[in-house]
Amino acid sequence: MRKLEEIESFQLHGGQQHIYRHASQACCCDMVFALYLPPKANTQAVPLLWYLSGLTCTHENAMTKAHLQYHAAKHGIAIVYPDTSPRGDAVADDQAYDLGQGAGFYVNATQKPWQNNYKMYDYIVDELPALLVQFDNLDMSRQAITGHSMGGHGALTIAMNNQKLYSSLSAFAPICNPTASDWGRKQLTAYLGEDESTWQKHDASLLLADCGWKSDILIDQGCADSFLDLLCPQALSAAIAQKNQPATIRFHQGYDHSYFFVCSFVADHVQFHAQKLAN
Amino acid sequence: MRKLEEIESFQLHGGQQHIYRHASQACCCDMVFALYLPPKANTQAVPLLWYLSGLTCTHENAMTKAHLQYHAAKHGIAIVYPDTSPRGDAVADDQAYDLGQGAGFYVNATQKPWQNNYKMYDYIVDELPALLVQFDNLDMSRQAITGHSMGGHGALTIAMNNQKLYSSLSAFAPICNPTASDWGRKQLTAYLGEDESTWQKHDASLLLADCGWKSDILIDQGCADSFLDLLCPQALSAAIAQKNQPATIRFHQGYDHSYFFVCSFVADHVQFHAQKLAN
Repeated sequence: MRKLEEIESFQLHGGQQHIYRHASQACCCDMVFALYLPPKANTQAVPLLWYLSGLTCTHENAMTKAHLQYHAAKHGIAIVYPDTSPRGDAVADDQAYDLGQGAGFYVNATQKPWQNNYKMYDYIVDELPALLVQFDNLDMSRQAITGHSMGGHGALTIAMNNQKLYSSLSAFAPICNPTASDWGRKQLTAYLGEDESTWQKHDASLLLADCGWKSDILIDQGCADSFLDLLCPQALSAAIAQKNQPATIRFHQGYDHSYFFVCSFVADHVQFHAQKLAN
Repeated sequence: MRKLEEIESFQLHGGQQHIYRHASQACCCDMVFALYLPPKANTQAVPLLWYLSGLTCTHENAMTKAHLQYHAAKHGIAIVYPDTSPRGDAVADDQAYDLGQGAGFYVNATQKPWQNNYKMYDYIVDELPALLVQFDNLDMSRQAITGHSMGGHGALTIAMNNQKLYSSLSAFAPICNPTASDWGRKQLTAYLGEDESTWQKHDASLLLADCGWKSDILIDQGCADSFLDLLCPQALSAAIAQKNQPATIRFHQGYDHSYFFVCSFVADHVQFHAQKLAN
């Protein structure tokens, strides 16, 4: 069993909000993540919902602001909040908020100076699940995934690339078409290089057109989101229609890109995942 | 009508989370507060719940972390989140976290260097309500009050000193006996001076023994709260018993002093206030 160091633990909604640090082999640095265990986990193994966060976030932002735990407690679902990139003084970084630390984009970097640490795809798909197996009260055969913005991109692309791993998929204001957006082209070039064929599996709209998703997808998007031009929900909508993919994309009048938007709809997302995870 | 400058506004749970700045006459500086309006306020006047925050907090902490809005939206209640002190470079301060800016203690200071700005009692009781009257969708005849830690002290003492203003009273881990605690004696000395007779109306346990509260009170307290020795819930419990005061103090195993504790019980508090405000 690989070692987890508990940094903090809080009682929350009858369950426990834990924060752990561990040495990551994928990212070659210490990584921190948060894990919420609902009250039901005290007596039986519960399913796990992944929440992937957006640009600039750590494990902490959604843990404190998105308020999923209230609903997860009711439905008996655990939630894991990973960080969004490798971290530390020895880890490459960039002065821009949207590249380097806090902006891992859920890919495995192949290009200098990123390729030593920026393996967020492997971290989310392989390393962190292997670590979580040590929790007897997590039923790792029942996993769902969601995320916000860059994390919505991560949830959509990771799920479509790993259909057997997750029972259920949703997203909040995801980056839908990074190969055609300034939230994507810059980062995919930096992390993966100029060969755009390596980008395809990290673009939700292209993946949807290619392989689709095995079940229906729930996506919420604010109409007052100041990043609409970068998120490109219309590209994903077009792919969904052409693929005959069951999906619900809800466009909400007046909502922006903030956690106030996310927490306004987490009840629906947790319930959506709970239904899928119960099957 | 005195001028409110809207700094930010967010759609939240079908309502609006507003943040305003205004020139405060009581505090002789600009003050910022947050106001949540539930969906029901779009069509009719709704009651108002005051949430007074604790040491070091601004209007923002509870607004983003305590998650009262989810329940307030369901019950059709507005919430106002005032700041905890006057602010600014021209406002007296202290290097300690528990005195000066972020630590107004909800009193009217009479002592140097605090007496020019530190009038948080008047700000909460008089000035801010007078400002809020300009909102046609707030029914200022129906107000309730709650708070956390120093804000719980503020809620209890302000409500008991102004019984007609509020229909309902609750608190989260309040400072219950500041005249006998290091969270109190230092600040009351600094703000009000050595004459302890001026402190009495700012001590919930003394006030409870003196005048009581016109209805029942709801208080939640974590048993794993590292500040229990400073909060002194036993003093308030004793006063409640001796006064034959209807009250519920719930001691919760495992919960600490954080917003994770607060947000675990906000559903009950908002429901408690909703019932009182409906009468």
